[in-house]
Amino acid sequence: MPFSFENHHNVVFGDCDPAGIVYYPNIYRWMDGTFQRFLQQYGGHAAVCEQLDAVGLGLMETHAKYRRPLKDGDALTIRMEIVEWSAKSYRLIHRGYVGDDLAFEGSEVRALFENRDGRMRAGEVSRLKTLLESHSEP
Amino acid sequence: MPFSFENHHNVVFGDCDPAGIVYYPNIYRWMDGTFQRFLQQYGGHAAVCEQLDAVGLGLMETHAKYRRPLKDGDALTIRMEIVEWSAKSYRLIHRGYVGDDLAFEGSEVRALFENRDGRMRAGEVSRLKTLLESHSEP
Amino acid sequence: MPFSFENHHNVVFGDCDPAGIVYYPNIYRWMDGTFQRFLQQYGGHAAVCEQLDAVGLGLMETHAKYRRPLKDGDALTIRMEIVEWSAKSYRLIHRGYVGDDLAFEGSEVRALFENRDGRMRAGEVSRLKTLLESHSEP
Amino acid sequence: MPFSFENHHNVVFGDCDPAGIVYYPNIYRWMDGTFQRFLQQYGGHAAVCEQLDAVGLGLMETHAKYRRPLKDGDALTIRMEIVEWSAKSYRLIHRGYVGDDLAFEGSEVRALFENRDGRMRAGEVSRLKTLLESHSEP
Repeated sequence: MPFSFENHHNVVFGDCDPAGIVYYPNIYRWMDGTFQRFLQQYGGHAAVCEQLDAVGLGLMETHAKYRRPLKDGDALTIRMEIVEWSAKSYRLIHRGYVGDDLAFEGSEVRALFENRDGRMRAGEVSRLKTLLESHSEP
Repeated sequence: MPFSFENHHNVVFGDCDPAGIVYYPNIYRWMDGTFQRFLQQYGGHAAVCEQLDAVGLGLMETHAKYRRPLKDGDALTIRMEIVEWSAKSYRLIHRGYVGDDLAFEGSEVRALFENRDGRMRAGEVSRLKTLLESHSEP
Repeated sequence: MPFSFENHHNVVFGDCDPAGIVYYPNIYRWMDGTFQRFLQQYGGHAAVCEQLDAVGLGLMETHAKYRRPLKDGDALTIRMEIVEWSAKSYRLIHRGYVGDDLAFEGSEVRALFENRDGRMRAGEVSRLKTLLESHSEP
Repeated sequence: MPFSFENHHNVVFGDCDPAGIVYYPNIYRWMDGTFQRFLQQYGGHAAVCEQLDAVGLGLMETHAKYRRPLKDGDALTIRMEIVEWSAKSYRLIHRGYVGDDLAFEGSEVRALFENRDGRMRAGEVSRLKTLLESHSEP
Protein backbone atom coordinates (compact mmCIF):
# COMPACT_ATOMS: atom_id res chain seq x y z
CA MET A 1 0.00 0.00 0.00
CA PRO A 2 1.45 3.37 -0.94
CA PHE A 3 1.77 5.91 1.85
CA SER A 4 -0.19 8.62 0.13
CA PHE A 5 -3.32 10.70 0.63
CA GLU A 6 -5.41 13.18 -1.32
CA ASN A 7 -7.05 16.10 0.45
CA HIS A 8 -9.28 18.97 -0.68
CA HIS A 9 -9.75 22.56 0.41
CA ASN A 10 -11.95 25.27 -1.03
CA VAL A 11 -9.91 28.47 -0.80
CA VAL A 12 -11.87 31.28 0.88
CA PHE A 13 -11.49 35.04 1.27
CA GLY A 14 -10.01 34.72 4.77
CA ASP A 15 -7.18 32.51 3.51
CA CYS A 16 -5.94 35.46 1.43
CA ASP A 17 -3.89 38.57 2.18
CA PRO A 18 -4.34 42.21 1.09
CA ALA A 19 -2.78 41.36 -2.30
CA GLY A 20 -5.77 39.03 -2.79
CA ILE A 21 -3.74 35.83 -2.91
CA VAL A 22 -3.33 33.06 -0.35
CA TYR A 23 -1.21 34.03 2.65
CA TYR A 24 1.58 31.47 2.38
CA PRO A 25 1.62 30.10 5.98
CA ASN A 26 -1.84 28.71 5.16
CA ILE A 27 -0.23 26.48 2.52
CA TYR A 28 1.81 24.87 5.29
CA ARG A 29 -1.37 24.48 7.35
CA TRP A 30 -2.90 22.56 4.44
CA MET A 31 0.22 20.44 3.99
CA ASP A 32 0.24 19.52 7.69
CA GLY A 33 -3.52 18.98 7.62
CA THR A 34 -3.17 16.55 4.72
CA PHE A 35 -0.65 14.50 6.70
CA GLN A 36 -2.94 14.55 9.74
CA ARG A 37 -5.87 13.33 7.64
CA PHE A 38 -3.62 10.55 6.35
CA LEU A 39 -2.94 9.64 10.00
CA GLN A 40 -6.66 9.72 10.84
CA GLN A 41 -6.93 6.53 8.78
CA TYR A 42 -4.75 4.90 11.47
CA GLY A 43 -6.62 6.42 14.42
CA GLY A 44 -5.11 9.92 14.31
CA HIS A 45 -1.98 11.55 15.77
CA ALA A 46 -2.79 10.78 19.42
CA ALA A 47 -3.60 7.09 18.83
CA VAL A 48 -0.53 6.54 16.64
CA CYS A 49 1.73 8.23 19.22
CA GLU A 50 0.23 6.13 22.01
CA GLN A 51 0.92 2.91 20.11
CA LEU A 52 4.52 4.02 19.53
CA ASP A 53 5.10 5.49 23.01
CA ALA A 54 5.94 8.77 21.25
CA VAL A 55 5.24 12.42 22.05
CA GLY A 56 4.67 13.67 18.53
CA LEU A 57 5.22 13.22 14.82
CA GLY A 58 6.78 16.65 14.51
CA LEU A 59 8.90 18.48 12.02
CA MET A 60 12.62 18.83 11.43
CA GLU A 61 12.44 20.78 8.17
CA THR A 62 9.85 22.11 5.73
CA HIS A 63 10.02 23.68 2.29
CA ALA A 64 7.68 24.98 -0.40
CA LYS A 65 7.82 26.47 -3.88
CA TYR A 66 4.92 28.60 -5.05
CA ARG A 67 4.10 28.10 -8.72
CA ARG A 68 0.79 29.90 -9.17
CA PRO A 69 -1.12 32.24 -6.89
CA LEU A 70 -4.16 30.74 -5.16
CA LYS A 71 -7.30 32.87 -4.82
CA ASP A 72 -10.74 32.96 -3.18
CA GLY A 73 -12.90 30.35 -4.90
CA ASP A 74 -10.10 28.03 -6.05
CA ALA A 75 -10.85 24.33 -5.49
CA LEU A 76 -7.51 23.05 -4.24
CA THR A 77 -6.45 19.39 -4.27
CA ILE A 78 -3.41 18.42 -2.19
CA ARG A 79 -1.64 15.14 -2.97
CA MET A 80 0.75 13.84 -0.34
CA GLU A 81 3.20 10.97 -0.47
CA ILE A 82 5.87 9.68 1.90
CA VAL A 83 8.83 9.41 -0.45
CA GLU A 84 11.77 8.50 1.77
CA TRP A 85 12.50 6.74 5.06
CA SER A 86 15.77 7.40 6.92
CA ALA A 87 16.80 6.06 10.33
CA LYS A 88 15.39 8.94 12.36
CA SER A 89 13.26 10.86 9.86
CA TYR A 90 11.00 10.44 6.87
CA ARG A 91 10.24 12.82 4.05
CA LEU A 92 6.88 13.73 2.53
CA ILE A 93 6.08 15.55 -0.70
CA HIS A 94 2.90 17.62 -1.03
CA ARG A 95 1.64 18.98 -4.34
CA GLY A 96 -1.28 21.40 -4.58
CA TYR A 97 -3.36 21.56 -7.76
CA VAL A 98 -6.23 23.67 -9.05
CA GLY A 99 -7.55 21.53 -11.86
CA ASP A 100 -4.39 20.45 -13.71
CA ASP A 101 -2.36 23.50 -12.68
CA LEU A 102 0.33 22.97 -10.06
CA ALA A 103 -0.05 25.75 -7.46
CA PHE A 104 2.69 24.66 -5.06
CA GLU A 105 4.99 21.79 -4.21
CA GLY A 106 6.37 21.33 -0.75
CA SER A 107 8.13 18.88 1.49
CA GLU A 108 8.18 18.01 5.17
CA VAL A 109 10.91 16.09 6.98
CA ARG A 110 9.28 14.57 10.03
CA ALA A 111 10.62 12.71 13.04
CA LEU A 112 9.18 10.55 15.80
CA PHE A 113 9.77 12.53 18.96
CA GLU A 114 10.16 10.57 22.20
CA ASN A 115 10.81 11.51 25.80
CA ARG A 116 13.96 9.70 26.91
CA ASP A 117 15.62 10.46 30.26
CA GLY A 118 13.64 13.68 30.57
CA ARG A 119 14.63 15.00 27.15
CA MET A 120 12.72 15.04 23.88
CA ARG A 121 14.64 13.42 21.06
CA ALA A 122 14.15 11.87 17.61
CA GLY A 123 13.71 8.09 17.77
CA GLU A 124 13.88 5.33 15.16
CA VAL A 125 11.08 5.76 12.62
CA SER A 126 11.05 2.12 11.48
CA ARG A 127 8.40 1.40 14.11
CA LEU A 128 6.11 3.98 12.51
CA LYS A 129 6.68 2.44 9.07
CA THR A 130 5.85 -1.00 10.45
CA LEU A 131 2.66 0.30 12.07
CA LEU A 132 1.52 1.92 8.80
CA GLU A 133 2.36 -1.21 6.78
CA SER A 134 0.49 -3.47 9.20
CA HIS A 135 -2.80 -1.97 8.05
CA SER A 136 -3.67 -3.78 4.82
CA GLU A 137 -6.34 -1.18 4.30
CA PRO A 138 -5.87 1.93 6.35
CA MET B 1 -34.79 30.90 -1.95
CA PRO B 2 -33.47 30.70 1.59
CA PHE B 3 -30.17 32.43 2.27
CA SER B 4 -28.42 29.44 3.75
CA PHE B 5 -25.40 27.22 3.15
CA GLU B 6 -23.93 24.03 4.52
CA ASN B 7 -20.16 23.64 4.78
CA HIS B 8 -17.87 20.83 5.97
CA HIS B 9 -14.51 20.70 7.68
CA ASN B 10 -12.52 17.72 8.91
CA VAL B 11 -10.93 18.85 12.16
CA VAL B 12 -7.18 18.17 12.22
CA PHE B 13 -4.43 18.13 14.84
CA GLY B 14 -3.22 21.62 13.90
CA ASP B 15 -6.66 23.12 14.58
CA CYS B 16 -6.24 22.14 18.23
CA ASP B 17 -4.43 23.62 21.23
CA PRO B 18 -2.28 22.01 23.94
CA ALA B 19 -5.46 20.93 25.77
CA GLY B 20 -6.21 18.82 22.68
CA ILE B 21 -9.37 20.68 21.70
CA VAL B 22 -10.04 23.15 18.91
CA TYR B 23 -8.46 26.56 19.44
CA TYR B 24 -11.56 28.75 19.42
CA PRO B 25 -10.49 31.44 16.90
CA ASN B 26 -10.55 28.63 14.32
CA ILE B 27 -14.29 28.31 14.90
CA TYR B 28 -14.69 31.92 13.73
CA ARG B 29 -12.51 31.12 10.71
CA TRP B 30 -14.92 28.33 9.83
CA MET B 31 -17.95 30.58 10.36
CA ASP B 32 -16.48 33.26 8.09
CA GLY B 33 -15.38 30.59 5.59
CA THR B 34 -18.93 29.25 5.42
CA PHE B 35 -20.27 32.71 4.58
CA GLN B 36 -17.56 33.16 1.94
CA ARG B 37 -18.46 29.81 0.36
CA PHE B 38 -22.09 30.97 0.32
CA LEU B 39 -20.91 34.09 -1.54
CA GLN B 40 -18.88 32.01 -4.01
CA GLN B 41 -22.23 30.88 -5.44
CA TYR B 42 -22.72 34.53 -6.49
CA GLY B 43 -19.18 34.98 -7.84
CA GLY B 44 -17.38 35.45 -4.52
CA HIS B 45 -16.63 38.41 -2.25
CA ALA B 46 -14.74 40.46 -4.87
CA ALA B 47 -17.38 40.04 -7.59
CA VAL B 48 -20.26 40.81 -5.22
CA CYS B 49 -18.50 43.93 -3.91
CA GLU B 50 -17.77 45.11 -7.45
CA GLN B 51 -21.45 44.79 -8.42
CA LEU B 52 -22.42 46.78 -5.32
CA ASP B 53 -19.61 49.35 -5.54
CA ALA B 54 -18.62 48.25 -2.03
CA VAL B 55 -15.28 47.73 -0.29
CA GLY B 56 -16.18 44.72 1.80
CA LEU B 57 -18.87 42.65 3.47
CA GLY B 58 -17.22 43.02 6.85
CA LEU B 59 -18.20 42.55 10.44
CA MET B 60 -19.79 44.74 13.08
CA GLU B 61 -20.19 42.09 15.76
CA THR B 62 -19.63 38.37 16.27
CA HIS B 63 -20.55 35.90 18.99
CA ALA B 64 -20.24 32.19 19.72
CA LYS B 65 -21.24 29.68 22.39
CA TYR B 66 -19.23 26.48 22.70
CA ARG B 67 -21.37 23.46 23.52
CA ARG B 68 -19.03 20.50 23.06
CA PRO B 69 -15.27 20.35 22.52
CA LEU B 70 -14.12 19.60 18.97
CA LYS B 71 -11.15 17.28 18.47
CA ASP B 72 -8.77 15.93 15.84
CA GLY B 73 -10.75 13.62 13.56
CA ASP B 74 -14.18 15.17 14.10
CA ALA B 75 -16.20 15.61 10.90
CA LEU B 76 -17.74 19.03 11.37
CA THR B 77 -20.78 20.32 9.49
CA ILE B 78 -21.50 24.06 9.66
CA ARG B 79 -24.99 25.28 8.77
CA MET B 80 -25.35 28.98 8.08
CA GLU B 81 -28.45 31.09 7.59
CA ILE B 82 -29.09 34.80 7.18
CA VAL B 83 -31.82 35.35 9.76
CA GLU B 84 -32.37 39.11 9.82
CA TRP B 85 -32.01 42.15 7.56
CA SER B 86 -31.79 45.63 9.09
CA ALA B 87 -31.19 48.92 7.23
CA LYS B 88 -27.42 48.86 7.50
CA SER B 89 -26.63 45.35 8.69
CA TYR B 90 -27.74 41.74 8.44
CA ARG B 91 -27.34 38.90 10.87
CA LEU B 92 -26.23 35.34 10.25
CA ILE B 93 -26.48 32.28 12.47
CA HIS B 94 -23.93 29.47 12.21
CA ARG B 95 -24.36 26.10 13.89
CA GLY B 96 -21.62 23.48 13.98
CA TYR B 97 -22.49 19.80 14.32
CA VAL B 98 -20.57 16.55 14.69
CA GLY B 99 -23.19 14.01 13.72
CA ASP B 100 -26.29 15.16 15.61
CA ASP B 101 -24.34 16.84 18.41
CA LEU B 102 -24.28 20.62 18.44
CA ALA B 103 -20.66 21.72 18.96
CA PHE B 104 -21.15 25.48 18.73
CA GLU B 105 -23.63 28.15 17.70
CA GLY B 106 -22.52 31.57 16.62
CA SER B 107 -23.67 34.74 14.96
CA GLU B 108 -22.20 37.41 12.75
CA VAL B 109 -23.61 40.89 12.21
CA ARG B 110 -22.29 42.07 8.87
CA ALA B 111 -22.40 45.35 7.01
CA LEU B 112 -21.79 46.55 3.48
CA PHE B 113 -18.80 48.84 3.77
CA GLU B 114 -18.47 51.62 1.22
CA ASN B 115 -16.00 54.42 0.63
CA ARG B 116 -17.91 57.69 0.74
CA ASP B 117 -16.10 61.04 0.74
CA GLY B 118 -12.83 59.34 1.65
CA ARG B 119 -14.26 57.51 4.63
CA MET B 120 -15.36 53.92 5.01
CA ARG B 121 -18.90 53.59 6.26
CA ALA B 122 -21.78 51.12 6.43
CA GLY B 123 -24.21 51.50 3.53
CA GLU B 124 -27.76 50.26 2.90
CA VAL B 125 -27.80 46.46 2.71
CA SER B 126 -31.03 46.23 0.72
CA ARG B 127 -28.96 46.23 -2.49
CA LEU B 128 -27.13 43.12 -1.32
CA LYS B 129 -30.42 41.41 -0.50
CA THR B 130 -31.76 42.29 -3.97
CA LEU B 131 -28.64 40.92 -5.62
CA LEU B 132 -28.91 37.64 -3.72
CA GLU B 133 -32.64 37.34 -4.48
CA SER B 134 -32.10 37.99 -8.20
CA HIS B 135 -30.39 34.63 -8.55
CA SER B 136 -33.21 32.11 -8.77
CA GLU B 137 -30.59 29.44 -8.34
CA PRO B 138 -27.36 30.69 -6.91
CA MET C 1 -4.51 43.34 43.01
CA PRO C 2 -6.70 43.79 39.95
CA PHE C 3 -6.90 40.86 37.56
CA SER C 4 -5.85 42.78 34.49
CA PHE C 5 -3.16 42.79 31.84
CA GLU C 6 -2.02 45.00 28.97
CA ASN C 7 -0.65 43.43 25.80
CA HIS C 8 0.72 44.83 22.55
CA HIS C 9 0.69 43.70 18.93
CA ASN C 10 2.00 45.41 15.84
CA VAL C 11 -0.53 44.64 13.11
CA VAL C 12 1.13 43.25 9.98
CA PHE C 13 0.13 42.60 6.37
CA GLY C 14 -0.51 38.91 7.00
CA ASP C 15 -3.08 39.72 9.72
CA CYS C 16 -5.24 41.37 7.05
CA ASP C 17 -7.66 40.10 4.42
CA PRO C 18 -8.16 41.08 0.75
CA ALA C 19 -10.16 44.14 1.86
CA GLY C 20 -6.93 45.32 3.55
CA ILE C 21 -8.27 45.17 7.10
CA VAL C 22 -7.65 42.72 9.91
CA TYR C 23 -9.28 39.33 9.39
CA TYR C 24 -11.53 39.17 12.45
CA PRO C 25 -10.58 35.71 13.84
CA ASN C 26 -7.15 37.25 14.50
CA ILE C 27 -8.79 39.63 16.99
CA TYR C 28 -9.91 36.60 19.01
CA ARG C 29 -6.37 35.20 18.77
CA TRP C 30 -5.10 38.45 20.32
CA MET C 31 -7.78 38.37 23.02
CA ASP C 32 -6.89 34.79 23.95
CA GLY C 33 -3.18 35.60 23.73
CA THR C 34 -3.63 38.48 26.16
CA PHE C 35 -5.27 36.16 28.70
CA GLN C 36 -2.47 33.61 28.20
CA ARG C 37 0.16 36.29 28.80
CA PHE C 38 -1.72 37.26 31.97
CA LEU C 39 -1.48 33.59 33.03
CA GLN C 40 2.24 33.47 32.23
CA GLN C 41 2.72 35.68 35.28
CA TYR C 42 1.46 32.73 37.34
CA GLY C 43 3.54 30.11 35.50
CA GLY C 44 1.39 29.76 32.38
CA HIS C 45 -1.64 27.68 31.40
CA ALA C 46 0.01 24.28 32.02
CA ALA C 47 1.37 25.19 35.46
CA VAL C 48 -1.90 26.77 36.59
CA CYS C 49 -3.90 23.73 35.42
CA GLU C 50 -1.51 21.37 37.18
CA GLN C 51 -1.92 23.26 40.46
CA LEU C 52 -5.71 23.09 40.09
CA ASP C 53 -5.86 19.49 38.78
CA ALA C 54 -7.66 20.90 35.73
CA VAL C 55 -7.52 20.08 32.02
CA GLY C 56 -7.91 23.58 30.65
CA LEU C 57 -9.08 27.14 31.17
CA GLY C 58 -11.28 26.98 28.11
CA LEU C 59 -14.18 28.94 26.72
CA MET C 60 -17.93 28.78 27.10
CA GLU C 61 -18.78 31.92 25.13
CA THR C 62 -17.01 34.76 23.30
CA HIS C 63 -18.16 38.01 21.76
CA ALA C 64 -16.70 41.04 20.00
CA LYS C 65 -17.80 44.37 18.56
CA TYR C 66 -15.63 45.96 15.87
CA ARG C 67 -15.48 49.74 16.17
CA ARG C 68 -12.74 50.74 13.76
CA PRO C 69 -10.89 48.75 11.09
CA LEU C 70 -7.34 47.72 11.99
CA LYS C 71 -4.66 47.89 9.28
CA ASP C 72 -1.06 46.93 8.52
CA GLY C 73 1.17 49.13 10.65
CA ASP C 74 -1.29 49.85 13.47
CA ALA C 75 0.24 49.60 16.95
CA LEU C 76 -2.47 47.81 18.87
CA THR C 77 -2.79 47.79 22.67
CA ILE C 78 -5.12 45.23 24.24
CA ARG C 79 -6.34 45.81 27.80
CA MET C 80 -7.86 42.83 29.55
CA GLU C 81 -9.70 42.61 32.84
CA ILE C 82 -11.55 39.85 34.67
CA VAL C 83 -14.82 41.60 35.50
CA GLU C 84 -17.03 38.90 36.99
CA TRP C 85 -16.76 35.61 38.89
CA SER C 86 -19.67 33.15 38.90
CA ALA C 87 -19.73 29.66 40.44
CA LYS C 88 -18.52 27.80 37.36
CA SER C 89 -17.34 30.57 35.05
CA TYR C 90 -15.67 33.97 34.98
CA ARG C 91 -15.93 36.75 32.47
CA LEU C 92 -13.18 38.86 30.90
CA ILE C 93 -13.40 42.07 28.93
CA HIS C 94 -10.80 42.92 26.27
CA ARG C 95 -10.50 46.33 24.67
CA GLY C 96 -8.21 47.03 21.72
CA TYR C 97 -6.87 50.53 21.13
CA VAL C 98 -4.76 52.25 18.47
CA GLY C 99 -3.64 55.35 20.30
CA ASP C 100 -6.84 56.60 21.97
CA ASP C 101 -9.16 55.07 19.40
CA LEU C 102 -11.14 52.01 20.45
CA ALA C 103 -10.79 49.42 17.67
CA PHE C 104 -12.74 46.59 19.29
CA GLU C 105 -14.24 45.44 22.56
CA GLY C 106 -14.79 41.80 23.32
CA SER C 107 -15.58 39.38 26.08
CA GLU C 108 -14.73 35.82 26.98
CA VAL C 109 -16.64 33.61 29.41
CA ARG C 110 -14.18 30.99 30.62
CA ALA C 111 -14.50 27.87 32.73
CA LEU C 112 -12.18 25.54 34.58
CA PHE C 113 -12.50 22.23 32.79
CA GLU C 114 -11.87 19.09 34.81
CA ASN C 115 -11.98 15.37 34.06
CA ARG C 116 -14.46 13.79 36.47
CA ASP C 117 -15.56 10.16 36.09
CA GLY C 118 -14.21 10.07 32.55
CA ARG C 119 -16.07 13.18 31.41
CA MET C 120 -14.88 16.74 30.95
CA ARG C 121 -16.97 19.22 32.92
CA ALA C 122 -16.84 22.76 34.28
CA GLY C 123 -15.66 22.86 37.90
CA GLU C 124 -15.82 25.51 40.63
CA VAL C 125 -13.71 28.52 39.64
CA SER C 126 -13.22 29.80 43.18
CA ARG C 127 -9.99 27.77 43.39
CA LEU C 128 -8.61 29.66 40.40
CA LYS C 129 -9.54 32.99 41.99
CA THR C 130 -7.81 31.95 45.22
CA LEU C 131 -4.68 30.93 43.31
CA LEU C 132 -4.54 34.27 41.49
CA GLU C 133 -5.14 36.22 44.72
CA SER C 134 -2.42 34.31 46.57
CA HIS C 135 0.25 36.00 44.45
CA SER C 136 0.71 39.40 46.03
CA GLU C 137 2.72 40.34 42.98
CA PRO C 138 2.08 38.10 40.01
CA MET D 1 22.66 50.43 5.84
CA PRO D 2 22.14 46.72 6.28
CA PHE D 3 18.78 45.34 5.25
CA SER D 4 17.99 43.70 8.54
CA PHE D 5 15.39 43.80 11.29
CA GLU D 6 14.84 42.33 14.74
CA ASN D 7 11.35 41.37 15.86
CA HIS D 8 9.92 39.90 19.06
CA HIS D 9 7.04 37.59 19.88
CA ASN D 10 5.95 36.13 23.19
CA VAL D 11 4.85 32.59 22.44
CA VAL D 12 1.39 31.84 23.84
CA PHE D 13 -0.74 28.74 24.44
CA GLY D 14 -2.76 29.27 21.25
CA ASP D 15 0.41 29.19 19.11
CA CYS D 16 0.92 25.57 20.18
CA ASP D 17 -0.52 22.23 19.10
CA PRO D 18 -1.74 19.24 21.13
CA ALA D 19 1.88 18.10 21.57
CA GLY D 20 2.40 21.37 23.48
CA ILE D 21 4.88 22.86 21.02
CA VAL D 22 4.49 25.60 18.45
CA TYR D 23 2.43 24.60 15.42
CA TYR D 24 4.98 25.14 12.66
CA PRO D 25 2.94 27.27 10.20
CA ASN D 26 3.04 29.93 12.93
CA ILE D 27 6.81 30.11 12.51
CA TYR D 28 6.27 31.16 8.89
CA ARG D 29 3.72 33.74 10.08
CA TRP D 30 6.42 35.22 12.33
CA MET D 31 9.00 35.17 9.54
CA ASP D 32 6.62 36.98 7.18
CA GLY D 33 5.59 39.33 9.98
CA THR D 34 9.22 40.25 10.60
CA PHE D 35 9.68 41.17 6.94
CA GLN D 36 6.46 43.21 7.02
CA ARG D 37 7.66 45.09 10.11
CA PHE D 38 10.93 45.78 8.27
CA LEU D 39 8.82 47.23 5.42
CA GLN D 40 6.79 49.36 7.84
CA GLN D 41 9.93 51.44 8.26
CA TYR D 42 9.50 52.40 4.59
CA GLY D 43 5.74 53.01 4.85
CA GLY D 44 4.57 49.40 4.75
CA HIS D 45 3.73 46.90 2.02
CA ALA D 46 1.01 49.00 0.36
CA ALA D 47 3.09 52.20 0.24
CA VAL D 48 6.18 50.40 -1.09
CA CYS D 49 4.13 48.63 -3.77
CA GLU D 50 2.51 51.90 -4.80
CA GLN D 51 5.90 53.58 -5.23
CA LEU D 52 7.09 50.64 -7.36
CA ASP D 53 3.83 50.18 -9.31
CA ALA D 54 3.79 46.60 -8.02
CA VAL D 55 1.03 44.29 -6.85
CA GLY D 56 2.89 42.55 -4.06
CA LEU D 57 6.20 41.52 -2.53
CA GLY D 58 5.21 37.88 -2.54
CA LEU D 59 6.97 34.57 -2.25
CA MET D 60 8.58 32.18 -4.70
CA GLU D 61 10.01 29.76 -2.15
CA THR D 62 10.28 29.32 1.63
CA HIS D 63 12.17 26.96 3.87
CA ALA D 64 12.73 26.34 7.59
CA LYS D 65 14.71 24.05 9.87
CA TYR D 66 13.44 23.50 13.41
CA ARG D 67 16.25 23.24 15.94
CA ARG D 68 14.47 23.39 19.28
CA PRO D 69 10.79 23.19 20.18
CA LEU D 70 9.12 26.48 21.11
CA LYS D 71 6.62 26.52 23.98
CA ASP D 72 4.05 28.70 25.74
CA GLY D 73 5.96 31.41 27.60
CA ASP D 74 9.07 31.49 25.40
CA ALA D 75 10.28 35.00 24.56
CA LEU D 76 11.20 34.66 20.91
CA THR D 77 13.51 37.03 19.02
CA ILE D 78 13.52 36.84 15.22
CA ARG D 79 16.48 38.32 13.33
CA MET D 80 15.97 38.89 9.62
CA GLU D 81 18.45 39.88 6.96
CA ILE D 82 18.26 40.22 3.17
CA VAL D 83 21.30 38.19 2.11
CA GLU D 84 21.11 38.05 -1.68
CA TRP D 85 19.74 40.06 -4.61
CA SER D 86 19.17 38.36 -7.98
CA ALA D 87 17.59 39.90 -11.08
CA LYS D 88 14.02 38.93 -10.27
CA SER D 89 14.18 37.77 -6.68
CA TYR D 90 15.89 38.40 -3.36
CA ARG D 91 16.53 36.07 -0.48
CA LEU D 92 16.03 36.63 3.26
CA ILE D 93 17.29 34.64 6.19
CA HIS D 94 15.31 34.54 9.46
CA ARG D 95 16.71 33.13 12.68
CA GLY D 96 14.58 32.63 15.80
CA TYR D 97 16.20 32.65 19.23
CA VAL D 98 15.06 32.08 22.80
CA GLY D 99 17.87 33.63 24.77
CA ASP D 100 21.00 32.32 23.04
CA ASP D 101 19.36 29.13 21.79
CA LEU D 102 18.57 28.91 18.10
CA ALA D 103 15.00 27.66 17.77
CA PHE D 104 14.70 27.82 13.97
CA GLU D 105 16.35 29.17 10.87
CA GLY D 106 14.42 29.84 7.71
CA SER D 107 14.60 31.55 4.36
CA GLU D 108 12.24 33.32 2.03
CA VAL D 109 12.82 33.95 -1.68
CA ARG D 110 10.67 36.92 -2.59
CA ALA D 111 9.79 38.61 -5.85
CA LEU D 112 8.26 41.89 -6.93
CA PHE D 113 4.99 40.93 -8.59
CA GLU D 114 3.64 43.24 -11.27
CA ASN D 115 0.60 43.22 -13.52
CA ARG D 116 1.83 43.33 -17.12
CA ASP D 117 -0.55 42.84 -20.04
CA GLY D 118 -3.18 41.40 -17.73
CA ARG D 119 -0.87 38.82 -16.18
CA MET D 120 0.95 38.82 -12.88
CA ARG D 121 4.69 38.28 -13.24
CA ALA D 122 7.96 38.77 -11.40
CA GLY D 123 9.65 42.08 -12.26
CA GLU D 124 13.17 43.44 -11.75
CA VAL D 125 13.89 43.81 -8.03
CA SER D 126 16.66 46.40 -8.45
CA ARG D 127 14.02 49.13 -8.08
CA LEU D 128 13.10 47.77 -4.65
CA LYS D 129 16.76 47.70 -3.62
CA THR D 130 17.20 51.31 -4.77
CA LEU D 131 14.11 52.39 -2.82
CA LEU D 132 15.38 50.73 0.35
CA GLU D 133 18.87 52.22 -0.09
CA SER D 134 17.50 55.72 -0.66
CA HIS D 135 16.42 55.89 2.99
CA SER D 136 19.55 56.76 4.91
CA GLU D 137 17.64 55.97 8.05
CA PRO D 138 14.60 53.83 7.48
